[in-house]
Amino acid sequence: MAPSTENGEKLSPAEEHSRKAFGLAATDSSGHLSPFAFSRRNNGENDVTIKILFCGICHSDLHSIKNEWRNTIYPIVAGHEIAGLVTEVGSKVQKYKVGDKVGVGCMVNSCQSCNNCNQGFENYCPGMILTYNSIDKDGSVTYGGYSNMIVVNEKFVIKFPENLPLDKGAPLLCAGITVYSPMKYHGLNEPGKHLGVVGLGGLGHVAVKFGKAFGLKVTVISTSASKEKEAIERLGADAFLISKNPEQMQAAMGTMDGIIDTVSAPHSIPPLLALLKATGKMIMVGLPEKPLEIPAFSLIMGGKNLAGSCIGGIKDTQEMLDFAGKHGVTADIELISADYVNTAIERLVKADVRYRFVIDIANSLNAA
Amino acid sequence: MAPSTENGEKLSPAEEHSRKAFGLAATDSSGHLSPFAFSRRNNGENDVTIKILFCGICHSDLHSIKNEWRNTIYPIVAGHEIAGLVTEVGSKVQKYKVGDKVGVGCMVNSCQSCNNCNQGFENYCPGMILTYNSIDKDGSVTYGGYSNMIVVNEKFVIKFPENLPLDKGAPLLCAGITVYSPMKYHGLNEPGKHLGVVGLGGLGHVAVKFGKAFGLKVTVISTSASKEKEAIERLGADAFLISKNPEQMQAAMGTMDGIIDTVSAPHSIPPLLALLKATGKMIMVGLPEKPLEIPAFSLIMGGKNLAGSCIGGIKDTQEMLDFAGKHGVTADIELISADYVNTAIERLVKADVRYRFVIDIANSLNAA
Repeated sequence: MAPSTENGEKLSPAEEHSRKAFGLAATDSSGHLSPFAFSRRNNGENDVTIKILFCGICHSDLHSIKNEWRNTIYPIVAGHEIAGLVTEVGSKVQKYKVGDKVGVGCMVNSCQSCNNCNQGFENYCPGMILTYNSIDKDGSVTYGGYSNMIVVNEKFVIKFPENLPLDKGAPLLCAGITVYSPMKYHGLNEPGKHLGVVGLGGLGHVAVKFGKAFGLKVTVISTSASKEKEAIERLGADAFLISKNPEQMQAAMGTMDGIIDTVSAPHSIPPLLALLKATGKMIMVGLPEKPLEIPAFSLIMGGKNLAGSCIGGIKDTQEMLDFAGKHGVTADIELISADYVNTAIERLVKADVRYRFVIDIANSLNAA
Repeated sequence: MAPSTENGEKLSPAEEHSRKAFGLAATDSSGHLSPFAFSRRNNGENDVTIKILFCGICHSDLHSIKNEWRNTIYPIVAGHEIAGLVTEVGSKVQKYKVGDKVGVGCMVNSCQSCNNCNQGFENYCPGMILTYNSIDKDGSVTYGGYSNMIVVNEKFVIKFPENLPLDKGAPLLCAGITVYSPMKYHGLNEPGKHLGVVGLGGLGHVAVKFGKAFGLKVTVISTSASKEKEAIERLGADAFLISKNPEQMQAAMGTMDGIIDTVSAPHSIPPLLALLKATGKMIMVGLPEKPLEIPAFSLIMGGKNLAGSCIGGIKDTQEMLDFAGKHGVTADIELISADYVNTAIERLVKADVRYRFVIDIANSLNAA
């Protein structure tokens, strides 16, 4: 049940909880973000209250604020790449103390009892509660990280390694785990293996960095020849393939152990499957709108695998962040102030960012 | 180089090798089979000569004799589910002796040196030589098991367990390994798991039996309600789903660890993916002509896997046959005489067989 008055009336976002909060919200499908006053629940015994310092802008935020997935509840406060400091902990909280550097990713809760949860796949729990635009256990709508603070069950809070910067680390909470998890579960983290990364955006550039940190040979596959220098010199990829160049694609056939495909735009899958060795694995983490067309032949010959993967579980997210700290993996970001966010969204539509916008919340977000 | 005369002329099938053989061949795309005199090579030092007793009729045979895959070399002698007795062994043969009960499946050789071969995946070797309609190392065309005898490198000969009948065991050399191998490599051989088997034909009925032998819960998924009694009472399946019944399919959503899809006719894949648990695996072993249409969403939500698999390696084929012997897994067959083969092919086109025709070669195949 959503919080309500004694008369059963629905309370406003500013009234439904006891603690004042503020952020940036879209109120219609224009997606325009403007200051928004709302509220957060009291810190429960298992909760951690976090002062948000940074929040990444994920491509999902763009889809959500514009209602492109037809499920947006307005007003919406997006943001699920959250980094900040613990300001309060509940009486039963064990892992965190005030002052800890922490992060929150795409989920703030789950049923915590199904098979998926028990196996560490809260990301596949039917009762998963997303960080924003989701219905929380008390019936209220969840609001995300484009805001000054958040209250989260400690099980869904991730500890930042001491040396991992909060601004460049924030995008790992979504973009990082989204590529790390399939690499782990499909054996694409074993040194010496050859990984293809399709698309060099927010997800792809982090996949290249994790691939190199795992000790893989990494080949970037892109439609855009202009990204070659960047991929190799800046991100450390070993090779670069232009997917529209048949000679290059032909020469690379059967050479890759796995491929992480981060592209949401329509693109042909069979030429990518052809790059795989026998029993190789290709994992989709982008979400093209139209169905993929897959000739059965392209899977059967060579015993190939086409999988999907959606973010990752909480234990794996902690493991990913610890690994990132140890190996110096961070996102390449453009740090922006809160008043630039609508411009940033416009640029994101045009993929005009290398590679992630991160909002400098603490220094620039003000109450309405 | 193909065997030829001193003048470089191509020799006829009856002349190109030194040992006389006879079989049933199609000479054009009508696919009509008639007596055919040809020849086999001398038994080399690593070779085993096999008197063929039984040969299964696989659906691939039908496609091949009618040139439906546009790659048939006529005359063609089909048959790659071969069971018989060793009559001669080469000086370097170690595993076999005269009188041994043996089988030959879809391959008679491979490069034996590539990474795939080294890992036991000769079935994915680019140099794999198929049992029929393939170019052998000496340049001659390979002829399959609708024939009185065959000469095969011992590495591609499979030993029959003592208790496994040759007639009912023959189809395992193709149909059996085709379902056993993906069950093994995708972890669908662990007791207690829930396997879906799509299609109840030559492959499907063996998949049910292997599934039960592995200790799985097995659900048959079929378009045909009439097969329910058969699936459960005769084959031992635990449950039966009619794929065109939305209520049944809905109720079974998210319950299966894996699915083996044996159907070559066009069919919709997303409703089958929906039957899988999170991270579940669906493996295609049939070969629908048109590309599969797969919404990325149906793979990404739940982190699901869609794979292909093509027969299996030699070591795995031996393991499969040993397992079948130990657990009493055999194909359900209709044993036919050689003069019935054209009628059998006609019935196979109509899927009118439970579940495999096997030719009683030794008792009914005569020289032209």
